[in-house]
Amino acid sequence: MQPTLHIIGTGPGDPELLTIKAMNVLGRCQAVVAPKGSQDGHSTALAIVSQIVPVDEKEVYELFFPMKKITAGQEPCAEVREAWIDAAKKILVLLDEGKDVAFPTLGDPAIYSTGYYLYETLLGLRPEVKVLFYSGISAMSSCSAETAIPICLGNEMLAVIPATFSDERIRRTLQDFDTIVLMKVHRVLERILILLKEADLLENTVFIERAGMEGERIIRDLSELPDN
Amino acid sequence: MQPTLHIIGTGPGDPELLTIKAMNVLGRCQAVVAPKGSQDGHSTALAIVSQIVPVDEKEVYELFFPMKKITAGQEPCAEVREAWIDAAKKILVLLDEGKDVAFPTLGDPAIYSTGYYLYETLLGLRPEVKVLFYSGISAMSSCSAETAIPICLGNEMLAVIPATFSDERIRRTLQDFDTIVLMKVHRVLERILILLKEADLLENTVFIERAGMEGERIIRDLSELPDN
Repeated sequence: MQPTLHIIGTGPGDPELLTIKAMNVLGRCQAVVAPKGSQDGHSTALAIVSQIVPVDEKEVYELFFPMKKITAGQEPCAEVREAWIDAAKKILVLLDEGKDVAFPTLGDPAIYSTGYYLYETLLGLRPEVKVLFYSGISAMSSCSAETAIPICLGNEMLAVIPATFSDERIRRTLQDFDTIVLMKVHRVLERILILLKEADLLENTVFIERAGMEGERIIRDLSELPDN
Repeated sequence: MQPTLHIIGTGPGDPELLTIKAMNVLGRCQAVVAPKGSQDGHSTALAIVSQIVPVDEKEVYELFFPMKKITAGQEPCAEVREAWIDAAKKILVLLDEGKDVAFPTLGDPAIYSTGYYLYETLLGLRPEVKVLFYSGISAMSSCSAETAIPICLGNEMLAVIPATFSDERIRRTLQDFDTIVLMKVHRVLERILILLKEADLLENTVFIERAGMEGERIIRDLSELPDN
């Protein structure tokens, strides 16, 4: 079997939200390359998976992936680009040594995941590399389960948009869709609250912070949200 | 501990796509109530979970849930309504006997799942009943992993809509969003192909049938799709 990079969704935080498939694949990999968001911190994805699959006898690397805004169709800044290339090169060395490599990534690789940037970078360096993806539970799915609120039902329409979009765009989406999942609200929360109030949706909105992780906060009535 | 109904996402078909949490909870339940789509058929959700968790020593019921169109905010037809009530009553009997009950449901309960209709019906009959939800891998997430195509990246916007909506609505969504997941395309495929062609999106569309199940078919170039 050709050595393979396995890009594995860890789910949002609870290690039991790994799939059985993810657990089995992780068990078989000789090396783990895990992303961390700060230079001197640790990888959250690694912390999650290592509670389920012992990593003591594996080669483990925690690599820094700067969390900068990435705009679809545009090149990222040099710092981000370099980090992806460094990670891809490290992975190619491990694959060339005949090792299967796991890359755990928070949530579901399908939804706004670092895993795909790594994948593209890797294919750019070596088009014939073998990469497989493994679904994970997304934060929004876990929020739905914890609050017992469905994301969509029957013939409802769902929109998932980063909250950093223009007021006009968010306004239109709030009108047009049955369920709207706003991602990355943290920095723009004040603006979003104004838009929700204007659309008379404050009471129908659930705010979830650190979904599925330690320090999770769920607020079902947004008028209770403190000002800060 | 109060006896509890556990509504558990099975993932799309591969039993290894169950989460570890789902596996553990299923193992602890004394009874399983599983939905089946035809009167004399078997439950697909039960077939999936029983490959991972032996059900021989559990009380198992396969109940008929008619697959009819449900419109958000409207009462379903009498046949559907009756089936939900029958299932809810059966579950209440089991809970009253002190049993924990598992209700496995295909994919992720968050996304267009029978589980929430059962939940609402149950709460209508007995508001204090205890129900917990467990996320599963959705079909769209599994499609993404299998095709190595992300659902959304960077600042992209995602829309998930049933393909049964009006041409005008689908046209607008195709224009407005970066990624569009069209659900329930089977019966309206011909119409959808015309709309995709008109929007010059045929080459950017992936068609997936029976996602994650036996007989899965993935077509990456929709001009290859046979006419029927």
